[in-house]
Amino acid sequence: MYNLEKLSTLLGGKIKGDKVQEITGLAPFFQAKEGEVTFAAEDKFLAKLNETKATVLVVPKLKEYLPNKIYIVVEKNPRELMPILLKFFKKEILFPTKAIEDSAVIGKNVKIAPNVYIGHNAIIGNDVTIYPNVFIGQDVVVGEGSILYPNSVIREFCVLGKNCILQPGAVIGSDGFGYTKVDGNNIKIEQIGRVILENDVEIGANTTIDRGAIGDTIIKKYTKIDNLVQLGHNVVVGENCFIISQVGIAGSTQVGDNCTLAGQTGVAGHIKIGDNVILGAKSGITGNIASNQVLSGNPPVNVKEHLKIKASLKKLPELIKKIKKLEKIK
Amino acid sequence: MYNLEKLSTLLGGKIKGDKVQEITGLAPFFQAKEGEVTFAAEDKFLAKLNETKATVLVVPKLKEYLPNKIYIVVEKNPRELMPILLKFFKKEILFPTKAIEDSAVIGKNVKIAPNVYIGHNAIIGNDVTIYPNVFIGQDVVVGEGSILYPNSVIREFCVLGKNCILQPGAVIGSDGFGYTKVDGNNIKIEQIGRVILENDVEIGANTTIDRGAIGDTIIKKYTKIDNLVQLGHNVVVGENCFIISQVGIAGSTQVGDNCTLAGQTGVAGHIKIGDNVILGAKSGITGNIASNQVLSGNPPVNVKEHLKIKASLKKLPELIKKIKKLEKIK
Amino acid sequence: MYNLEKLSTLLGGKIKGDKVQEITGLAPFFQAKEGEVTFAAEDKFLAKLNETKATVLVVPKLKEYLPNKIYIVVEKNPRELMPILLKFFKKEILFPTKAIEDSAVIGKNVKIAPNVYIGHNAIIGNDVTIYPNVFIGQDVVVGEGSILYPNSVIREFCVLGKNCILQPGAVIGSDGFGYTKVDGNNIKIEQIGRVILENDVEIGANTTIDRGAIGDTIIKKYTKIDNLVQLGHNVVVGENCFIISQVGIAGSTQVGDNCTLAGQTGVAGHIKIGDNVILGAKSGITGNIASNQVLSGNPPVNVKEHLKIKASLKKLPELIKKIKKLEKIK
Repeated sequence: MYNLEKLSTLLGGKIKGDKVQEITGLAPFFQAKEGEVTFAAEDKFLAKLNETKATVLVVPKLKEYLPNKIYIVVEKNPRELMPILLKFFKKEILFPTKAIEDSAVIGKNVKIAPNVYIGHNAIIGNDVTIYPNVFIGQDVVVGEGSILYPNSVIREFCVLGKNCILQPGAVIGSDGFGYTKVDGNNIKIEQIGRVILENDVEIGANTTIDRGAIGDTIIKKYTKIDNLVQLGHNVVVGENCFIISQVGIAGSTQVGDNCTLAGQTGVAGHIKIGDNVILGAKSGITGNIASNQVLSGNPPVNVKEHLKIKASLKKLPELIKKIKKLEKIK
Repeated sequence: MYNLEKLSTLLGGKIKGDKVQEITGLAPFFQAKEGEVTFAAEDKFLAKLNETKATVLVVPKLKEYLPNKIYIVVEKNPRELMPILLKFFKKEILFPTKAIEDSAVIGKNVKIAPNVYIGHNAIIGNDVTIYPNVFIGQDVVVGEGSILYPNSVIREFCVLGKNCILQPGAVIGSDGFGYTKVDGNNIKIEQIGRVILENDVEIGANTTIDRGAIGDTIIKKYTKIDNLVQLGHNVVVGENCFIISQVGIAGSTQVGDNCTLAGQTGVAGHIKIGDNVILGAKSGITGNIASNQVLSGNPPVNVKEHLKIKASLKKLPELIKKIKKLEKIK
Repeated sequence: MYNLEKLSTLLGGKIKGDKVQEITGLAPFFQAKEGEVTFAAEDKFLAKLNETKATVLVVPKLKEYLPNKIYIVVEKNPRELMPILLKFFKKEILFPTKAIEDSAVIGKNVKIAPNVYIGHNAIIGNDVTIYPNVFIGQDVVVGEGSILYPNSVIREFCVLGKNCILQPGAVIGSDGFGYTKVDGNNIKIEQIGRVILENDVEIGANTTIDRGAIGDTIIKKYTKIDNLVQLGHNVVVGENCFIISQVGIAGSTQVGDNCTLAGQTGVAGHIKIGDNVILGAKSGITGNIASNQVLSGNPPVNVKEHLKIKASLKKLPELIKKIKKLEKIK
């Protein structure tokens, strides 16, 4: 539990509302639950203050204040205060003291190899297999039947469902790439969210999945991710997807169910890809993609159209000559 | 040794042939040796049944059966039975019990750092150097003079030749990306092949090389692979190649000798690249490439042509205007 | 200290100069300091012999010899002798003998988890945090307040400034990709340089940064590097840059201050990118880039122009038809 007045003072804000109460945590605007605090900086949030379930809202001065909410009214843009907010809500990390911490809860028939680290209060389900040099951080949950291959890493607070597989070197819960400029220098914004892998998710060798900044990065059930893939903070990938090797998906992007993203495709941040979408290899995606499409290229177009564009490209130098000729004729 | 009748029953098949015998293993159609089983699903295999040396063939009902072979005739498409086949032939994995297993065979002048794991029946040649946090799986062979840098991983059954080098975090033998749909869900197909590195092969930091599904992924002698490269299952790379950083090669593709694939190039699966081929950075390869060529681009063209295309691209918006103008004139 | 005559004999050269003296090391032409040896093979170096501060120069036969230098005059192209030079100057590596070597110097309030390796003569500053399975090589310096997440690797001789962060699996100091052909085979060139991270640098999960061949790979203060990035040998990245996920920068390229390279961008070797440059995602950079630009694409163009080109690409197959039509009309 966190203290409201302490937070308000830290933010240089004033509390406005019926009662002062304890806060249970920090959450993104639309995911927040009762008892949590969120912040609204841009108009798109300020216009929808009734749509968040958060109890406490960090906001700039407003014309009117909805009842049934508590406000911390701040002078600065609330977004600029995010580093302070995140630092305030970051949970204390208990540093490793021994290979398998006494507070870790280990299920039945768990196989633990030499040189494994299992963190404070971690919960390892039944029939989990853990190979050498695996790191399992504090409060991590590993669902039953999961297999963690050598040198894979699950950082603090992340959650793996049942029957998940981490190939060697996979990293779950690295910090998202979040910085802010202070006096011209890049200063880190704490990343306090988690990574959630649902049941039957497999993660490829040396793939990296960043934890959420606030809130969680989520990979839904039966989705399979190949080697050397990068998923940014707060990415959500739906069920039964294939994310092929060397794909990169930037922060906060959402991918629907049953999608296939072929190798080396790059997807920008904060966009939505629908269900049943197939993206060809090396595609470059910078805008939303509706469901039920097979696209390829950069920009992405229908896959048949993409083949035509590729064929046309070969003729491009010749075209320029032809046009010059035509211009002379006219 | 595996039991023929047991396998046939498991596949719901009927045995047709002269004699019932023990099977030594499962292998791809053209690589199979006497005593092994293979399967033929598509016409391209069914038309060439005399070209496999496998003793046992899993096939659909045929018009005629060549003599000197044993058949397991199945109702379903043999390819759909692959998950069952692979599970049947997957060798039992002995889980780690201590840092250096008693059954491991360690050569002379081997340097083993702290926190190293060497698996059951692994064979480490003379003068091998093994840095901390290296994982060497069961039955792995490491040829003499090889250097394994920290946190590199060699999973079970893989083989390294003499004087191989693994840079830190390299992963040899991760599972290939193979799944099948069952009731709409992505279900894993066991990957039971190996990775073979011939002599004098070097693998870059955090590069990942998947084991074969059936059969092996092979990197031939003197080939050097840079950091963060991905090689899919059953890829074969010839001798004396350079595979530059962040290249991805999809499953079953074959690269000839003396090739250079420049950075961030992507190569589709199941294609053949000849000898002495140079592919420029960021190339996208989706079809076979004949020997002795310098290509670049997506689609790949002669490297000089590619420079022209790139220059032409800059003029493309202008071209469209010109054509509009010409159309008005006509 | 290295012996001049021994080196000259090894190179098959003849010493020319006033006095014979001890050499302190090998360095690149323009970075060399007094007492060091460098080599000049190409005209661009041979024409500027007065611009290196090196005391000893490995050169082919010259028409005239500047005074105040010592020369090792060789028969072969000096560049071909580089493998011998590098082997000669490579420092002896002390192999790990125990988890934390006795000669390592550990500061105050350093947190060291289980399964960590700290090498011979390594220096760990105050308040450093080291998670499990981290490898810190011989003579490495880790500046105060740095955090090394699990399974990160710092190879021998590399230096981290204050408040650096390595995300899990990051590799600092892997060998650069340097080979030479001997009898048609790829033979390794030793990589004897270092990686230097200045203060407040963060390196993403499973990112790889190669050590310099000769001289150093340098990342300047406050620069933040995302996951799965590859930096080749002798790359220099300026202050306060953002290098986003899956970017690759080839050897010896220099990036200025305050640059942002967006995801999956590839940069060729031996080029210069100015200050305040922003490169859009998936850009392909093969030539120098002047300061203060926002570019995108392959080839890179002004970002607005790139959007036009991408839009035009969609019309390309149609254009070809139009031109055919126009040609018939003429």
